[in-house]
Amino acid sequence: MLAEILSTGDEVLTGAVIDSNAAHIARKLLQTGLCVVRHTAVGDDLDRLIAAMKEIGDRSDIAVITGGLGPTLDDLTAEAAARAAGAELVENPTALSYIEAFFSSYFRSMTVSDRKQAMMPAGAVPIVNSAGTAPGFRMRIGGCACFFLPGVPSEMYRMLEASVLPVIASECLPADARQHFREKLLTLFGLPEATVNERIAGLVPEFGEVRLGMIARFPVIDVKLSAYGKNLEQVDRQIERAAGKIQAVLDRWIFSTSQETMEEVAGKLLKEKGATVALAESCTGGLIAHRLTNVPGSSDYLLLSAVTYSNAAKTSILGVPAETIAAHGAVSEPTVRLMAEGARRIAGSDYGLSVSGIAGPSGGTAEKPVGTVCIGIAGPERTLSRRIVFPFRNRAANKEIFAQTALDMLRRELMGLEGIF
Amino acid sequence: MLAEILSTGDEVLTGAVIDSNAAHIARKLLQTGLCVVRHTAVGDDLDRLIAAMKEIGDRSDIAVITGGLGPTLDDLTAEAAARAAGAELVENPTALSYIEAFFSSYFRSMTVSDRKQAMMPAGAVPIVNSAGTAPGFRMRIGGCACFFLPGVPSEMYRMLEASVLPVIASECLPADARQHFREKLLTLFGLPEATVNERIAGLVPEFGEVRLGMIARFPVIDVKLSAYGKNLEQVDRQIERAAGKIQAVLDRWIFSTSQETMEEVAGKLLKEKGATVALAESCTGGLIAHRLTNVPGSSDYLLLSAVTYSNAAKTSILGVPAETIAAHGAVSEPTVRLMAEGARRIAGSDYGLSVSGIAGPSGGTAEKPVGTVCIGIAGPERTLSRRIVFPFRNRAANKEIFAQTALDMLRRELMGLEGIF
Repeated sequence: MLAEILSTGDEVLTGAVIDSNAAHIARKLLQTGLCVVRHTAVGDDLDRLIAAMKEIGDRSDIAVITGGLGPTLDDLTAEAAARAAGAELVENPTALSYIEAFFSSYFRSMTVSDRKQAMMPAGAVPIVNSAGTAPGFRMRIGGCACFFLPGVPSEMYRMLEASVLPVIASECLPADARQHFREKLLTLFGLPEATVNERIAGLVPEFGEVRLGMIARFPVIDVKLSAYGKNLEQVDRQIERAAGKIQAVLDRWIFSTSQETMEEVAGKLLKEKGATVALAESCTGGLIAHRLTNVPGSSDYLLLSAVTYSNAAKTSILGVPAETIAAHGAVSEPTVRLMAEGARRIAGSDYGLSVSGIAGPSGGTAEKPVGTVCIGIAGPERTLSRRIVFPFRNRAANKEIFAQTALDMLRRELMGLEGIF
Repeated sequence: MLAEILSTGDEVLTGAVIDSNAAHIARKLLQTGLCVVRHTAVGDDLDRLIAAMKEIGDRSDIAVITGGLGPTLDDLTAEAAARAAGAELVENPTALSYIEAFFSSYFRSMTVSDRKQAMMPAGAVPIVNSAGTAPGFRMRIGGCACFFLPGVPSEMYRMLEASVLPVIASECLPADARQHFREKLLTLFGLPEATVNERIAGLVPEFGEVRLGMIARFPVIDVKLSAYGKNLEQVDRQIERAAGKIQAVLDRWIFSTSQETMEEVAGKLLKEKGATVALAESCTGGLIAHRLTNVPGSSDYLLLSAVTYSNAAKTSILGVPAETIAAHGAVSEPTVRLMAEGARRIAGSDYGLSVSGIAGPSGGTAEKPVGTVCIGIAGPERTLSRRIVFPFRNRAANKEIFAQTALDMLRRELMGLEGIF
């Protein structure tokens, strides 16, 4: 069955607010087994609201429509729904009792404009709003079962969960149309999108009902596998089979199959090993430490990050000889090896991880262009280092990818995988 | 003239990503003087893409369409555009040269799937993408001038600014439809939204044509003044007059009138004074250093951040006596004073800024609940400290507001303003 989402209101249309409601509703409808085919947003304009609702009535089976149910003059949704369905706009006694109950529960009195919120198309079934004054309602427009909810996210979320999704499952979906939806994300880092595509494109014919998608969320890529089916076990099995085929060709680049961040994965590995780490950051400027400390419990394994932005601090805090920096430069493998060893030594940690690079926009040379980074890891058994040149000129992008690469190197070292990419 | 926005891609339709592109484009089109009437999102489905594009071609004058221009199999936008316009899909030599130039500038080689991105409807005019591999294009569908851009926000933003808005202004808009739009944001930190609202609500009747809006972007609030008009000087004067009235009542909380971040403002003040700073971070875990180093040129004033997550590191690196920590705790004013002085001393900087707090979700006590933070500043003339308890239980929110508060304290100290809030 086809579903649509309509968001109403000038604040969405003008971009004053980002429409996060539509994404939330889409995820929920998909999980119910519906096929979401379109989102639309229109402003507080009666004719355009009516036109959008009529189109949806002609096109889809189920719609969730948000916004424009409040007490003010620019709340036009109920009137538009009545006109789109060819119904009268009437005061709904059940809706009125919901509004009265809401006000009396907060010992407040209802105004004339609050009462306007009980005006609904004749025949509409009110939906109670326990968190706000505007009730929702449901009614048919053309061939489509339409659910009208307020635009305030906290009110909408609750009403969708309590009064819309159960009704869709029990009344709108015929038993034989109810489908299970499952998706699995394989998150990978270190390969360009085109390369990932080439490696997995050939597998698609073997995937059967499983849909493949790719989402680039710099600096990582999610390979998404999703499938619908009547038999949940079968859907799960299909997805796992497809995931196995992808892992066979992309294993070392896939760092999570459960939507973890790289810092969560690295943290988990440190915890499992009972190991600790200290950082020596230069161009990443604290970003690696910030990311590791975003994970609750990181104080178990992160002892220190020395953000030694100046060369003097690299020498005085980390004990990197000034001669090494003078001979090879701050952005060099010899320097990051000593930085990593220095961080490990002063913190007394099992591992030291260091980064020095040129994030830009200025500071690059022909030999060491913007985007150059050196990463060092000092561990109980060995110290290793790598030099990589990324193609970005943008400071934020470089900090992001330098930090991600350093955390990935730590992950690979903890897992005993060789190489960076 | 009527404008629409079409976002394409399963990731938007399924709610895997929230469509922030549409809001950004809407704001930009409004500023150009267009009337935005609808946003639509459809998935990677050829028939539904074609249908949506044909509808837009029948309904509007200008459209910006994002997503689906990449190298992979589910990138169907160019094919859909060709079918909607009744044109052939052909390899565009200009687009191919853009792609080749992008790859050669990074010394990388183009794959077969990268080349697919040069396939465009016959007659389309390519739009260069300096930040990525997929060029955009423009063409008419029905009565509508359609601009096709990639869905990656950073690429889309640049191309919209450089190649779409100027073309709309010069070629699509009749001269008498052009209105000037101006907006000014006053960005403030440290007052709750309701308090800001109370202080400025009484001023609104004096604002004339200037519209007032408030946007809460945790942890800051933007007070937005905007106006349209044919006479640019008059619009500017009206906005400046309104801004002056707001500054009169909110001056010390407003840290920028030109959309700077707190770290940019603090960095500018350090630069103006020729002063340097060193940080000692605990619970913020490197976030303050990360933010300061996001600003190009920050190496002029940021010498060091010691992210001393463990108490041992506070003692060994910063020289905070273990007795002080034992007597008062790591989260205490005596400890942060010594941390700030220690950072200043070991880095040889003019200022030391330190933070120690409880970000949560666990670790709170009755006396020091989650949300408690102590901040210290050691300067050439004095050391000061503050203890604040924020009402958040959320780790990310606490790190964010602790870092922001510390940077604001530094800003106020550099400006000679007393107090935190």
